[in-house]
Amino acid sequence: MTSKIILDTDPGIDDAMAIIFAEAHPQIELKAITCVYGNATIDNATHNALFLKQKYNLQADVAKGAAKPIVRPPVGATVVVHGESGLGDVLAPAELSVKADPRPAYQYIIDALRAEPGEITLVAVGPLTNLALALEAAPEIVTLVKEVVVMGGAFGVNDHRGNVTPYAEANIHDDPHAADIVFGAAWPVVIIGLDVTEQSFFTKDYLDRLRDDAAEVGQFIWDISRYYLKFYSEKVGLEGCHVHDPSAIAYVIDPSLFTLRDGPVRVVSDGPAEGMTIQKFDKRQYMHDEWQSHASQKVGIAVENERLLSLYRQTIIDYSQKR
Amino acid sequence: MTSKIILDTDPGIDDAMAIIFAEAHPQIELKAITCVYGNATIDNATHNALFLKQKYNLQADVAKGAAKPIVRPPVGATVVVHGESGLGDVLAPAELSVKADPRPAYQYIIDALRAEPGEITLVAVGPLTNLALALEAAPEIVTLVKEVVVMGGAFGVNDHRGNVTPYAEANIHDDPHAADIVFGAAWPVVIIGLDVTEQSFFTKDYLDRLRDDAAEVGQFIWDISRYYLKFYSEKVGLEGCHVHDPSAIAYVIDPSLFTLRDGPVRVVSDGPAEGMTIQKFDKRQYMHDEWQSHASQKVGIAVENERLLSLYRQTIIDYSQKR
Repeated sequence: MTSKIILDTDPGIDDAMAIIFAEAHPQIELKAITCVYGNATIDNATHNALFLKQKYNLQADVAKGAAKPIVRPPVGATVVVHGESGLGDVLAPAELSVKADPRPAYQYIIDALRAEPGEITLVAVGPLTNLALALEAAPEIVTLVKEVVVMGGAFGVNDHRGNVTPYAEANIHDDPHAADIVFGAAWPVVIIGLDVTEQSFFTKDYLDRLRDDAAEVGQFIWDISRYYLKFYSEKVGLEGCHVHDPSAIAYVIDPSLFTLRDGPVRVVSDGPAEGMTIQKFDKRQYMHDEWQSHASQKVGIAVENERLLSLYRQTIIDYSQKR
Repeated sequence: MTSKIILDTDPGIDDAMAIIFAEAHPQIELKAITCVYGNATIDNATHNALFLKQKYNLQADVAKGAAKPIVRPPVGATVVVHGESGLGDVLAPAELSVKADPRPAYQYIIDALRAEPGEITLVAVGPLTNLALALEAAPEIVTLVKEVVVMGGAFGVNDHRGNVTPYAEANIHDDPHAADIVFGAAWPVVIIGLDVTEQSFFTKDYLDRLRDDAAEVGQFIWDISRYYLKFYSEKVGLEGCHVHDPSAIAYVIDPSLFTLRDGPVRVVSDGPAEGMTIQKFDKRQYMHDEWQSHASQKVGIAVENERLLSLYRQTIIDYSQKR
């Protein structure tokens, strides 16, 4: 069965890995890439998405989205992780032959969901600003979406607690108010956070072999990941990188890779734990409970890492051979 | 070695259990009871402390403290747990022959610490308002205290996350701003939270046997705990009660009962996780880190329950026989 997705993203190195993964897998129809600030500025993120559209002849529309969070002051692009323009040492050509859809991303999302009720899965792997803006402008989209899959957050499972603060993951920390809106809405959300994405790892050797075995596509993934791996080596102390954004695509392709936990999710929006995601996963009653009025969502708490790594590798190799 | 303590408390049923425990143990010199709102109103809490002073001929001074939190709106007395006036079905006589010290609690604390530098341990088992007010009025007390032992908070260890909200413990939820000041100050704090206090349990049978074996003292502890046990039975689904406030006294008597974890602690002061306590206990570096400028404190993560229960029981029995 094919899943039609809109991928909301801030490319971003692992975002590009996820975009290519979505395009490459025969069970996914990549309808659109809606862009958001985050790993890069909104201009760079959109330009990088258009670069991939041109480079891989994607049929997906590209729409430019929010430039900043809805309430909090902007954190700024994550240059230290993703490079000056967002794809590490790889620079998109300044002039491209493809153009973005004229609509802002949140409007594109609303129009697409209205045009095909129940057909489209939203996969969000950046700050959740575009999704929150869409929800605010058209609350009825909660009934029109098939599913919302988010890469973001950290719930303390498997000892994974945060990457930009001790208790917050970058996408949620970038716009905690938007995340609380998206997780609190009455639509079905699956959250693939650090709890599982940090359980999967592209080793340096894995990426070397992908370069050797997946022709130009493997080479491109290898090229953009050099800067990323330098960050990991120098700042995280690991030789390779976690599988963040591609894990959300992997969930869409094969949900059986993940174990999920049910319960409403809230986001801390300021103070020391700003951007912390917290799920209430028991049924206990409390005198004060700001979870109880929120929809129950699903949080990934375990992943079959080896199967996920094989799925990514084989998908990219198959795609490289078809081109 | 004897520990001289000031017990900051909101009696409160388990507070009364802790006051008697402190008075009863030969290694503790209970210098003063400073009162705070929380389980009861400040008037009821102070009156209950004076009642205990009169009833057990305590040499400890009693001082009346804060009536409300420093920033947030008051939550209100926990009548459902501790009864209308704070000691369950036991009502203190309206007229007492003993009187409170004329100073407000925070001033009493400051004066006492200045008079005996390095000698006094502050044990706080209610909202931390008095301690925060003392720190604000006389920041130098951080160098004058021997140690600060707090019953409060919930760090998610042993699956204990909160009791008044899904992620907050009552004392900290009552005044999160005060707690963040107290935990953030450069004095040595040991936090005995739900992570350990909910690992220890006074069964109904334990309290029955204490009544039988510890004369009038056992009878009094049994009497005040009837209301508490009714709450536990009806609302928590347990026959007995957790050992909250007495655990802080147990730590002072015998620190070897507890396993502690090092790291700075922050408190979420608003939003859905208001009152949540969070320790950073690894050494990782983050782009944004609101823990790194705070003092490292100690959080209890394990307790030897059987030893603690024996210590409490034997202390009360010995005390009852000396009277």
